[in-house]
Amino acid sequence: MSKPKTAITPTREENYPEWYQGVLKAADLAEHSPVRGCMVIKPWGYAIWENIQRVLDGKFKETGHQNAYFPLFIPLSYLEKESQHVEGFAKECAVVTHHRLEKNKEGRLVPAGELEEPLIVRPTSEMIIGHTFAKWVESYRDLPILINQWANIVRWEMRTRMFLRTTEFLWQEGHTAHASKEEAEIETKQMLQIYSDFCHHYLAMPVICGEKTPSERFPGAVSTYCIEAMMQDRKALQAGTSHFLGQNFSKSCGIQFRNMDGNQEFAWTTSWGSTTRLIGGLIMTHSDDDGLVLPPRVASSHIVLIPILHSEEAKSKVMGYCESLAASLRKIHYDGQPIRVVVDARDLRGGEKSWSWIKKGIPLRLEIGPREVDSEQLNLLRRDKAHRDGTPLSRSQLETQIGTILDEMQHHLLDKATRYRNKHMVEIDSQKEFAEFFTAKGEEIHGGFALCHWNEDPAIEAKVKEEFNVTIRCIPLDLPAKEGRCIFTGERSPRRVIFAKAY
Amino acid sequence: MSKPKTAITPTREENYPEWYQGVLKAADLAEHSPVRGCMVIKPWGYAIWENIQRVLDGKFKETGHQNAYFPLFIPLSYLEKESQHVEGFAKECAVVTHHRLEKNKEGRLVPAGELEEPLIVRPTSEMIIGHTFAKWVESYRDLPILINQWANIVRWEMRTRMFLRTTEFLWQEGHTAHASKEEAEIETKQMLQIYSDFCHHYLAMPVICGEKTPSERFPGAVSTYCIEAMMQDRKALQAGTSHFLGQNFSKSCGIQFRNMDGNQEFAWTTSWGSTTRLIGGLIMTHSDDDGLVLPPRVASSHIVLIPILHSEEAKSKVMGYCESLAASLRKIHYDGQPIRVVVDARDLRGGEKSWSWIKKGIPLRLEIGPREVDSEQLNLLRRDKAHRDGTPLSRSQLETQIGTILDEMQHHLLDKATRYRNKHMVEIDSQKEFAEFFTAKGEEIHGGFALCHWNEDPAIEAKVKEEFNVTIRCIPLDLPAKEGRCIFTGERSPRRVIFAKAY
Repeated sequence: MSKPKTAITPTREENYPEWYQGVLKAADLAEHSPVRGCMVIKPWGYAIWENIQRVLDGKFKETGHQNAYFPLFIPLSYLEKESQHVEGFAKECAVVTHHRLEKNKEGRLVPAGELEEPLIVRPTSEMIIGHTFAKWVESYRDLPILINQWANIVRWEMRTRMFLRTTEFLWQEGHTAHASKEEAEIETKQMLQIYSDFCHHYLAMPVICGEKTPSERFPGAVSTYCIEAMMQDRKALQAGTSHFLGQNFSKSCGIQFRNMDGNQEFAWTTSWGSTTRLIGGLIMTHSDDDGLVLPPRVASSHIVLIPILHSEEAKSKVMGYCESLAASLRKIHYDGQPIRVVVDARDLRGGEKSWSWIKKGIPLRLEIGPREVDSEQLNLLRRDKAHRDGTPLSRSQLETQIGTILDEMQHHLLDKATRYRNKHMVEIDSQKEFAEFFTAKGEEIHGGFALCHWNEDPAIEAKVKEEFNVTIRCIPLDLPAKEGRCIFTGERSPRRVIFAKAY
Repeated sequence: MSKPKTAITPTREENYPEWYQGVLKAADLAEHSPVRGCMVIKPWGYAIWENIQRVLDGKFKETGHQNAYFPLFIPLSYLEKESQHVEGFAKECAVVTHHRLEKNKEGRLVPAGELEEPLIVRPTSEMIIGHTFAKWVESYRDLPILINQWANIVRWEMRTRMFLRTTEFLWQEGHTAHASKEEAEIETKQMLQIYSDFCHHYLAMPVICGEKTPSERFPGAVSTYCIEAMMQDRKALQAGTSHFLGQNFSKSCGIQFRNMDGNQEFAWTTSWGSTTRLIGGLIMTHSDDDGLVLPPRVASSHIVLIPILHSEEAKSKVMGYCESLAASLRKIHYDGQPIRVVVDARDLRGGEKSWSWIKKGIPLRLEIGPREVDSEQLNLLRRDKAHRDGTPLSRSQLETQIGTILDEMQHHLLDKATRYRNKHMVEIDSQKEFAEFFTAKGEEIHGGFALCHWNEDPAIEAKVKEEFNVTIRCIPLDLPAKEGRCIFTGERSPRRVIFAKAY
């Protein structure tokens, strides 16, 4: 039997990394740029980011955060103030050393105007924001400070993959300062919860909330919390982090306040971030061998109307109908936003157009020819169902039900992803089983999340990483802490942690 | 007679540049950062930018543009492809030369990992976007391409002033490619018109649309159009530009397409931008000697409720009333957005709180004490009227009329600014008059826009700049071209142009 033809080759089973690149390309989401490790985010991909921004920004504001903007550059001496922090980022910093170009003797333009102090293109903004907070805070009355920034970030990564790990990426970074440890800890967890809710309800991507082990902490943090999602190759993707920074950064930046008793204290700070990597997570959670599948709530567009024109006479009738339908749909709101409609008037065959939208992952498609116009009977195609498996409905039914249909698809995607994740998240209680789980047996896709007991020894963690390329993704927050025996040493373990291969 | 005390000292008349800094500080809009020439945009200032973004973004999308994102870095060799372009920016480029930090022998961190090719932090993105467009375009069917990017930009300026000229600034840059010269020219003018409409209707800042003289063109452009506003020191502020790039950039970037006849042609491109400088323009157009005045449509917040608490007993009653009033107001829409309300619950004297909001320029203020709560009679204070000159109205009147009141203030600010601009825009027909107009006669604030005939000779333009520090701001588009005699040479002049001192 010949295997069914898919729009994306290779398929997930055949070669997952190449499939991912194929999906990106077929969906027109992004492309490589001439700058090493930097991508161009194309309109269809950027629209997803705009939706992510809109929703997250709303959630940040609802919880009292305000947006601000801090410089792109950080003077080297500022970055150095927190020793663990600078050590964590030193190997991947883009450094600005000159402030103009000049012609040399051969007439070639070369850097000139050397700076007295090199500037680092921000790999994260704790040091520059911390320095600024120090000026904003005098008394306990000035706290808390709850700030968020939408910005671009540069980390000079050696191996890059579009959306998952790029030299420059877009993100938001929250930075807060509090008068008490407890309040800062509550903030850290609150923001983790916001990320988790967002991934579930908007990206339809189930995540596990957990704490990182000390070796995986953010450089300079007291504790790092994260959300971890499982991709369809069963690898983990860290989709957001929230850091409790204790007083480490307030001490290195001098964020002090006069407390209610009139004494000087250092503030307690947090930081938390999520990036364009979320788009990579969304792609790898839902897409199939025919390309991208977009969860409706963050989809670049919700529905495409594809005029099918076999004759010149039909053209104005069909196009007129499509434009009028598009206009009615745009008046309907879904998730607080007008329905996003595309009318594909390109001069291409209907089948070619349909396939291009399947690959772009648009949730709903309608092919509209003279017959549909005359009968007012439409055939609604959903990206999460078989491509020819339409639902017949009238125009007025479509207009009344489109919100419900989109929500149905949204929930269906979350359910499907959750089932997949749960199926491949298993308790493993022996080293042998562990080794088998994480070793390919002729299969490209294998493994998953292994819930194992571990003796909390970083040396064991390092050994497992070395041997299997498997890391502890997190200590899950929502599992009851049940004691057991470390599968590597037999020593006491306070609870199971999640081991997985990771992006 | 002693002069009335003002919240900002010095006043505009006393020292305009210092007054500007004073307004920024008192309104908590922005502050200097430890990075030379870079500012921190604080929440009250950033909120204005968010409003500007929201409105402009909507206008760009309505006219068919899509957002995308391109790399922060431009390889030097790309920047060099357009010779005029690189010459225009070479003197103000931040150059990345290394990609990590390493400890030297003395244990100090120094730049390491030298790049084979230096990267320029984008001073504008024509070259990187042009290169990308070249890959996107094959046939006339792929045109037009209508792209916008919201991004940060770095130009190493020697003298900086917050919002007006900073080393890093935020902006949007539109980049489009078209199949015909005419279409690109229409696009260039359309975007100029969008900027002009936005300035009038949202910033309440009247602007003059015009074309730049060749010496003031964007490096590489065929023609540069601009909008010019008059500040309260009568200097001109260039508030946005739109460039017709002809085929210059498509030739250097290789943006070619197969036309309907099957022949290869170079595309016609445009670019257009507006920046956080708009905030500087807004500040200098409306603010007075008591601080910032915000036009309602882009105001960070619309109204502040200031609880006046003389006793502990009154507190819960007054606070409850304020919270309930705030909740009702937030349900009302103004200009398509929920009314933005602040409740100032700080533990400060009422007068101190009121003054802080006057300085922050919030359009409306309500001081609410037990008497107001009991009588349900409020006293609405408007930032564009005398500070104690309130309008009595009931809560329900406020709720019904707030939109109208905000619009009244919006129009009042535009009218006032337009009257000021018109008063100081004069036709000048002799060199003597011109010299007097632009020379201070013991007055800090003098001059304005001089509409003069000019013989179109760049040498004369340069001489005037040298002698008076006055430049041709633009050749106005909306004035009838009426011939005359150049005031500097007596030679023929096709039309009057606008001379002014400028930011």
